[in-house]
Amino acid sequence: MIDPTDRGFTLGDGLFETVLVEDGQVRRLDAHLARLNAGCDALGLPRPGEIALPPLPVEGRHALRLSWSAGVGGRGLDRPPAITPQLTITLAPAPLAGPARLITARTVRRNEHSPASGLKTLSYLDNVLARAEARARGGDEAVMLNTAGNLACAAAANLFWIADDRLFTPALGCGALAGITRARLMAAHPVEEVVAGRDALDRADALLLTNSLSGVRHVGALDGRSLAPHPLAARLASLLA
Amino acid sequence: MIDPTDRGFTLGDGLFETVLVEDGQVRRLDAHLARLNAGCDALGLPRPGEIALPPLPVEGRHALRLSWSAGVGGRGLDRPPAITPQLTITLAPAPLAGPARLITARTVRRNEHSPASGLKTLSYLDNVLARAEARARGGDEAVMLNTAGNLACAAAANLFWIADDRLFTPALGCGALAGITRARLMAAHPVEEVVAGRDALDRADALLLTNSLSGVRHVGALDGRSLAPHPLAARLASLLA
Repeated sequence: MIDPTDRGFTLGDGLFETVLVEDGQVRRLDAHLARLNAGCDALGLPRPGEIALPPLPVEGRHALRLSWSAGVGGRGLDRPPAITPQLTITLAPAPLAGPARLITARTVRRNEHSPASGLKTLSYLDNVLARAEARARGGDEAVMLNTAGNLACAAAANLFWIADDRLFTPALGCGALAGITRARLMAAHPVEEVVAGRDALDRADALLLTNSLSGVRHVGALDGRSLAPHPLAARLASLLA
Repeated sequence: MIDPTDRGFTLGDGLFETVLVEDGQVRRLDAHLARLNAGCDALGLPRPGEIALPPLPVEGRHALRLSWSAGVGGRGLDRPPAITPQLTITLAPAPLAGPARLITARTVRRNEHSPASGLKTLSYLDNVLARAEARARGGDEAVMLNTAGNLACAAAANLFWIADDRLFTPALGCGALAGITRARLMAAHPVEEVVAGRDALDRADALLLTNSLSGVRHVGALDGRSLAPHPLAARLASLLA
């Protein structure tokens, strides 16, 4: 249980990782811990020590969540002189979803002027609001623009698009999450990191989402426009499977 | 204690209020609950029912914190169909601080394109980072600019300035918190709500901070420039005391 004065709860002061577990096998834990460490450096939090996880006694697909909060201490915004972070680990089923129905969020934009935007932090309310808007408008995932009106990422995934057989994704400086599957895809296939407005998606032949739980996920519709399957998208999905 | 799957902890999905308690008397609870209700409407959370608090057996100044989190339910960003929010109440001493030493934050900006910016939410990491930067640079509170580079508010207070005996504050649309003491000050004295860049503070004769715990707080220095006491600032402080 979490102390009610834990800064992760009171202020969203902390980080998390969502790790895929397939038939009990924890996938790419090293990459997740490396990102968690980098996030600690960016936010001024102590790094966790080594975290070793045994195979877990579960079948099928699960999400292992590591939360690393700033812990108890200090009323108000100031962190205490000695930060004592708190590690919390939870596990939940994570079935594969079908093709995404994307909605471009109108009510909230991603803050590319915050170091938090590149990180998975315990302050994820903007993402919650974007997703809720997408659900309310008939979608199941949101495209988030940054405050300049350029593409950043989806609420819980990175965003890629295919145009003329070239693969594009928003640059990290646009407020995109530094996704592990994003990096894997870029290592496996040439990707152009760009600053692009929402209209780039209207000219795209196909869209893809990536995250650790779903790998490469196809996009079936964007703001009500249906998108047909694309051979390069299928190739990229199997490349990372 | 908080459940480790409470969305307030995992995602910062919730709101809070910080209420002044003087010698056991809870101050302006109605105004805080009205703001909490408005925040629930903005974020799509159920409102709390009536919250009645007796006088508390404490002497001196305390901060009563009400946290209203989205509660347990739903792995990932999607809220569960039936949201069961969780109310958490804590109390901590809150001594009065002296004149503020303000530092303009460079590493993080306030997102005026998020509905969360006007609210006290459990996703307060940007404010934590701004405050930490101010502390690291010799201050004790941060001035936050919004993503357009205009003034928004301080990390844990609203910002006012005096120029030619006129009183100014950033408009709410700039990403300023909808502060209760801000509203009280505006009801007690003419205030001009403006869109203004950081340079407006260089031309100011005096600066003030407001929040529920400190009322009107004087500013002794801004980015290393000392600011002398100002008669209007003193008048406003006693007006709201």
